[in-house]
Amino acid sequence: MSKPLSVAVAGLGTVGAGVLKLLAGNADIVAARAGRPVVVGAVSARDRRRNRGVKLDGLRWYDDPVALATDPGTDVVVELIGGSDGPARALVEAALAAGKPVVTANKALLAVHGAAIAELAEARGVPLAFEAAVAGGIPAIKGLREGLAANRIQRVAGILNGTCNYILTVMREAQREFAEVLAEAQKLGYAEADPSFDIDGIDAAHKLAILAALAFGRPVDFAAVHVEGIRAITALDILLAGELGYRIKLLGIAARTEGGISTRVHPCMVPVAAPIARVDGVFNAVVAEGDHVGRVMLEGRGAGAGPTASAVVADLIDIAQDRVTPVWGAAGGALSTAPSEPMERHVGAYYLRLMVVDRPGVIADVTGILRDQAISLESMLQRGRAPGEAVPVVLTTHDCEEAAMRAAITRIAALDVVLEPPAMIRIEPL
Amino acid sequence: MSKPLSVAVAGLGTVGAGVLKLLAGNADIVAARAGRPVVVGAVSARDRRRNRGVKLDGLRWYDDPVALATDPGTDVVVELIGGSDGPARALVEAALAAGKPVVTANKALLAVHGAAIAELAEARGVPLAFEAAVAGGIPAIKGLREGLAANRIQRVAGILNGTCNYILTVMREAQREFAEVLAEAQKLGYAEADPSFDIDGIDAAHKLAILAALAFGRPVDFAAVHVEGIRAITALDILLAGELGYRIKLLGIAARTEGGISTRVHPCMVPVAAPIARVDGVFNAVVAEGDHVGRVMLEGRGAGAGPTASAVVADLIDIAQDRVTPVWGAAGGALSTAPSEPMERHVGAYYLRLMVVDRPGVIADVTGILRDQAISLESMLQRGRAPGEAVPVVLTTHDCEEAAMRAAITRIAALDVVLEPPAMIRIEPL
Repeated sequence: MSKPLSVAVAGLGTVGAGVLKLLAGNADIVAARAGRPVVVGAVSARDRRRNRGVKLDGLRWYDDPVALATDPGTDVVVELIGGSDGPARALVEAALAAGKPVVTANKALLAVHGAAIAELAEARGVPLAFEAAVAGGIPAIKGLREGLAANRIQRVAGILNGTCNYILTVMREAQREFAEVLAEAQKLGYAEADPSFDIDGIDAAHKLAILAALAFGRPVDFAAVHVEGIRAITALDILLAGELGYRIKLLGIAARTEGGISTRVHPCMVPVAAPIARVDGVFNAVVAEGDHVGRVMLEGRGAGAGPTASAVVADLIDIAQDRVTPVWGAAGGALSTAPSEPMERHVGAYYLRLMVVDRPGVIADVTGILRDQAISLESMLQRGRAPGEAVPVVLTTHDCEEAAMRAAITRIAALDVVLEPPAMIRIEPL
Repeated sequence: MSKPLSVAVAGLGTVGAGVLKLLAGNADIVAARAGRPVVVGAVSARDRRRNRGVKLDGLRWYDDPVALATDPGTDVVVELIGGSDGPARALVEAALAAGKPVVTANKALLAVHGAAIAELAEARGVPLAFEAAVAGGIPAIKGLREGLAANRIQRVAGILNGTCNYILTVMREAQREFAEVLAEAQKLGYAEADPSFDIDGIDAAHKLAILAALAFGRPVDFAAVHVEGIRAITALDILLAGELGYRIKLLGIAARTEGGISTRVHPCMVPVAAPIARVDGVFNAVVAEGDHVGRVMLEGRGAGAGPTASAVVADLIDIAQDRVTPVWGAAGGALSTAPSEPMERHVGAYYLRLMVVDRPGVIADVTGILRDQAISLESMLQRGRAPGEAVPVVLTTHDCEEAAMRAAITRIAALDVVLEPPAMIRIEPL
């Protein structure tokens, strides 16, 4: 066997400690598959004395993570600090500049600064690997970028945030409201104290931006992603979705369209029969559609120490074996320059749920507005009767353009008989 | 861009023609991801004049496929002839001996002669790639061997034969018998004129033998696989399975056990709630369980020109990019020598369905035999009453050993009141 691959790990939170545990516990397997031992030689974290359940004896300790980039004994730098800027970014850039391969789980960094970082990696001819950044332990990046590399990808879609999927699953199963389920998820550790990053769709959007770059061979473009979270989803909408044959999921979707590449994260109604509709709880899934392979779905745990460490060490094994893939699947000169399609141009079907005063003429007013926007109705359902009081009215449309739907919603919301802002959820044929 | 990768393709059936079509139609994408053009320079097939819907002008034609191995302009040989021996084997061995990388979709060859062929490839330092040999377009081999490489795999299981899955799906949905559905599948082209290879489980066993080798880092051992097909499955058993909360699937399962590695292909009852239970029709799926990653499922099309070509060309792109993985995931010296566990030692739960004469004492006789074998019952159900006539009796057991179950079945089958050979289906907690 060749000489060991010496790894420096920056960030010893749950995932960092998980990587150390995996490398220690599965050292035999990792060495066999890497063709040589993979050992941690140096680490950096905030507090040297905290008990993380892993031995740090004999490891070179750095208070400054950026110093790991120039640790003389280090072959590969593993960045597990997180955050799109600050020390994580500084370390990754310094390591690549120093010619050291980088493995990172940092989706925020890659989504926001990935285009420049990929250029740096390519210019220096240094591997930059990030399997753990999307969908945790699921080999989604390898599957898409290498496994389906021969395909023209039409669409990639995924359940990319376990917190949101857990909340939506519990809301449906227990018929409970968002705020209540979120509070419980926070108690259970499935949601952060400040949950905005997850439930407002930002984390999913970071991951989707990366998947879109791989699927379409285009530098990552987070700014182009349309992002909505799940705060506005109600138990009533989940119930009505079920009656219509749908499940509500927060999906990230990137698709090749006439106008270029569309990238969006928002709650979707997906048919109950679609495989992704049954991916529940904290599980993640990625579906890719290629012109030759058809539809492929990968499903598994999207977060947690074990799954994330599994992905980080898979990257280390690839580097140990000299298996390198260009960051976005192709070298800089061969990347696509397809434009991003703005959300206003999105074409799809919509679910609208209105709370209206139950009196004659209301439906005529609403449907008149839709007609004015050339939006064609697929179904209309008024649930129950309560003359003079508020009742829900549910409308589903055929395919129409987002801009027309937004204009219609603005006018519908302004009607006297409409008592709450309309609930709008896009219907996705998956 | 570097000089083109020149490919020789042996076998121009559906898959071979599919590879030529993909390389022509997606030449831009393949070149971007391979870092250079991937072009077909030479081909071999039986009949030069047959119309395959692809242009062969300008390609070097060989009547003898083995001659492709020494075609001077060829960088990589793609073997799509099929069969565990004959010209396929001769070509693969000749190409490796000549130092030419080989891509093959040939599961029979790899299952039966893979151990020796892998040694040859390693000895010559030549890549041998076979993503298309298991689960068609699903990147199952890459996912397992590279994506989950950091894990100690406990179990890998899969729906590995689309013909069987299609037949079982139609039997359940239409409540029809095996022979009738098979005949229809043959008409539709979903089953071969001689269907034995598929429905007797041999094709699935070839694929499982390969998956087991990758999962446990052990040379392939097809002879150790216990194989049963789906001929004995009846519409009644599918119906009863549904009532018990199960679906019947033909699974290939490889697991790490106390006695070593168990590998088996047979019909299974899997809980309806298990993701793999919902993989229907011609779709394939592979589930892997790793000690860190947990459970990962990959699902997609397991056969057909497009999916198989997608996998073959993904292998070509890996070779063009110099991404090489040892055949069984680790170099020869680091492979496992764990023994194969014989099927008699299998421990699991069982479903037994008997056709018995409806009269007092029958259940006591049957359960007495099970008690004598120390087999503990989980449930017993006699459907309907017809004194003196034949009625089905369904038993499910707690975990017991296969050898005990076989001994019990032999004794039960010999009872006067048991009118047909007992139906036995293993229950798998997936």
